[in-house]
Amino acid sequence: MSTSPKASAQRVIADLNELRDLTSDERGAQRVAWGPVWRKTREWFTGKVQELGLTTERDGAANLWATLPGKSADSIVLGSHLDSVPGGGWLDGCLGVLAGLEVLRRYREAGTPPPLTLHLVDWADEEGARFGRSLTGSAASAGALDPHQELAHLVDRAGVKLPDALAENGITLDGMKTARQYFDGKRAKAYLELHIEQGPVLQSMKKPVGVVLGTMGVERHQLTFKGQAAHSGAAPLHLRQDAFLAAAQFALSAQEVAVKLSGKTPRTRVVATVGVVKVEPNFVTAVPGRAEVSIDLRALDAKVLKKMLEGAKKASAAAAKKHKVKVSWSPLLHITPRIFDETLTGFVAEAVKEVSGSAPELPSGPLHDAAEMAAVVPTAMVFAQSSPGVSHTKIEDTPLPHLDKSIRAFFGLVDRTVQHLS
Amino acid sequence: MSTSPKASAQRVIADLNELRDLTSDERGAQRVAWGPVWRKTREWFTGKVQELGLTTERDGAANLWATLPGKSADSIVLGSHLDSVPGGGWLDGCLGVLAGLEVLRRYREAGTPPPLTLHLVDWADEEGARFGRSLTGSAASAGALDPHQELAHLVDRAGVKLPDALAENGITLDGMKTARQYFDGKRAKAYLELHIEQGPVLQSMKKPVGVVLGTMGVERHQLTFKGQAAHSGAAPLHLRQDAFLAAAQFALSAQEVAVKLSGKTPRTRVVATVGVVKVEPNFVTAVPGRAEVSIDLRALDAKVLKKMLEGAKKASAAAAKKHKVKVSWSPLLHITPRIFDETLTGFVAEAVKEVSGSAPELPSGPLHDAAEMAAVVPTAMVFAQSSPGVSHTKIEDTPLPHLDKSIRAFFGLVDRTVQHLS
Repeated sequence: MSTSPKASAQRVIADLNELRDLTSDERGAQRVAWGPVWRKTREWFTGKVQELGLTTERDGAANLWATLPGKSADSIVLGSHLDSVPGGGWLDGCLGVLAGLEVLRRYREAGTPPPLTLHLVDWADEEGARFGRSLTGSAASAGALDPHQELAHLVDRAGVKLPDALAENGITLDGMKTARQYFDGKRAKAYLELHIEQGPVLQSMKKPVGVVLGTMGVERHQLTFKGQAAHSGAAPLHLRQDAFLAAAQFALSAQEVAVKLSGKTPRTRVVATVGVVKVEPNFVTAVPGRAEVSIDLRALDAKVLKKMLEGAKKASAAAAKKHKVKVSWSPLLHITPRIFDETLTGFVAEAVKEVSGSAPELPSGPLHDAAEMAAVVPTAMVFAQSSPGVSHTKIEDTPLPHLDKSIRAFFGLVDRTVQHLS
Repeated sequence: MSTSPKASAQRVIADLNELRDLTSDERGAQRVAWGPVWRKTREWFTGKVQELGLTTERDGAANLWATLPGKSADSIVLGSHLDSVPGGGWLDGCLGVLAGLEVLRRYREAGTPPPLTLHLVDWADEEGARFGRSLTGSAASAGALDPHQELAHLVDRAGVKLPDALAENGITLDGMKTARQYFDGKRAKAYLELHIEQGPVLQSMKKPVGVVLGTMGVERHQLTFKGQAAHSGAAPLHLRQDAFLAAAQFALSAQEVAVKLSGKTPRTRVVATVGVVKVEPNFVTAVPGRAEVSIDLRALDAKVLKKMLEGAKKASAAAAKKHKVKVSWSPLLHITPRIFDETLTGFVAEAVKEVSGSAPELPSGPLHDAAEMAAVVPTAMVFAQSSPGVSHTKIEDTPLPHLDKSIRAFFGLVDRTVQHLS
């Protein structure tokens, strides 16, 4: 290969900038799945693939594939997503796809076919920003999606049904069911993904690139505390059934449960979050008669996650009893933790250490397409530092020197994986 | 007097029913101050006064007065309010006005003028339901209202300015300033009011009627906790600045402060309420970066109220520090406690005991026109049990036997006060 990894990384950054200019407005990236900007993004991407003398092909779930045939039909799949949330950042998702594009470009420049076939995939609707179901395309390919049961009823804020949005893109619920078979035809032996961290862990460790251990499991529930609304002046404390105080006690207790079950290392850390809080009647002079909160629990270890949920349930019962209110739970989401492949994760560690001098490990709290892939193929992931440690906002960023290192670590991971599987 | 107190109480209840039929719809009472139903209510009331051969007169603040001249121009003022919140109850306010009307009726039937002049007043806009400023009319009469500073800028939800709503009723801000002088002309020696409790205290004590000690002082503030929004999966617990957890800790601590400073008797009980809670961004996957809560503290003892506020401020600082966020306070309302007149409250106790066998004492948490009057004239109040212990809703109620007793207790209070002042 004639192009240096440094120069290749610069080409990825140039592509990222070009895509940003094409698909962002003053509020940030607008590549929301199933919409016109997203389609424009994919046309642009297809053009980039065609510049390599290759073509793109769409599977039944709208995942967009580019293939560089190798000496063997056994393959390595590189992937991430070009879609964004509304007002998203310039790197979330597209970094991985465009780093994968550069891998194809580098092998193409080398002139000889790689030992294994290289597939690059842009997963459809990773974000679930419009209809609320994330990882749609990768779940379909992993056979983990029942389109009729999970998608048929979904409606966006404008009242558009998901099946109608799919139809605008030439996709049907029945067609989505073919994605798993299509994926099996790829004979994938590994799935590799580069993504920004979207959190503050690498930044707090002052590390530009990280080794992702897996994606945390998630238990997400809604709790409703029901007490009795009353006048703030007229109701003595001992006669109150204050639903908000119960919710407040629950939030603090759930946090304590998480702190107790959390280890000190990134691998053993767990998180608990009360993100949604609504009280009724929500007047200054009214004791809240009703409080709704969400709880989102995450851990890399399924047993620990189960303990967290048990602890949170006990905490909610204790809080309800203390404040003489009722509490009910309603499940929103359950996701099993996915630990990435040990051998491939070893390659990630080597490649990250090569470019940055150390190999900090961390789990991913946010979900990724790699979580769906990990269920069906050996999978590994590289994280680029986020700075500030946020995402789903236009201020999402990664300093250019760190971006460079993360892209080069991804090249190193692909090279090691190709060599290992040849 | 030829009519028995029992028969008189029945006439009050008949008037209350008549008013309910005239001014309620399926959502409850609709006698909102400054509007057409309220004007109709006052026309109806004026008709009732005219049936006694008396007339009504409106002062500059729209308070509606009826007068039964006595042997002396020194007077006793009986009052409450005919206005209601939208969708209010059938008793809140009008019970006191119509019980006062029956007092005039009873003295009228007796044929000879009472030793003192009896004034009956329907205070304007006690509820403040439309423009947010409550006790408007009684505050104006007590000289505790600066109309230009406090009312000129107020706007209702439909965008109507308060001065324009006043103009529809023939009232001006300048004219409101004359209400104090008008009141002074009444030569009031006592102010007496019957009202429903609006809370669960008498119900919990199984007492039909109560002796009101005074109205609690109020410290009402808004707190804003500012942390950092973050992804629920990506942000480790030790790197978070969770504004909601700080707010939750504050709410529980403020409650503890109140419990510690609260005595066991109705006189020494205090309350603390977090009624408004808003978090941002308010997503299941977002650590709250901002939380706004209200705190409403009430006590009958001004020193205790001051200690509560100090305790709550300390609690907010501790909660902010614990969760690494900032907190700021913004005052919403400060009201000084009003202790009612000792002699008159003694008459209330005698009258309540006479009809119900005991004289349970309690403070009023909600404000009343009596709180404004207490600053300028010896004042006392009788509470009728609320069952259920709620108000500002159409389900507000008082069982008829309790209503009867409370009205007769009010007659007894007026009789004792007349005798005392003669």
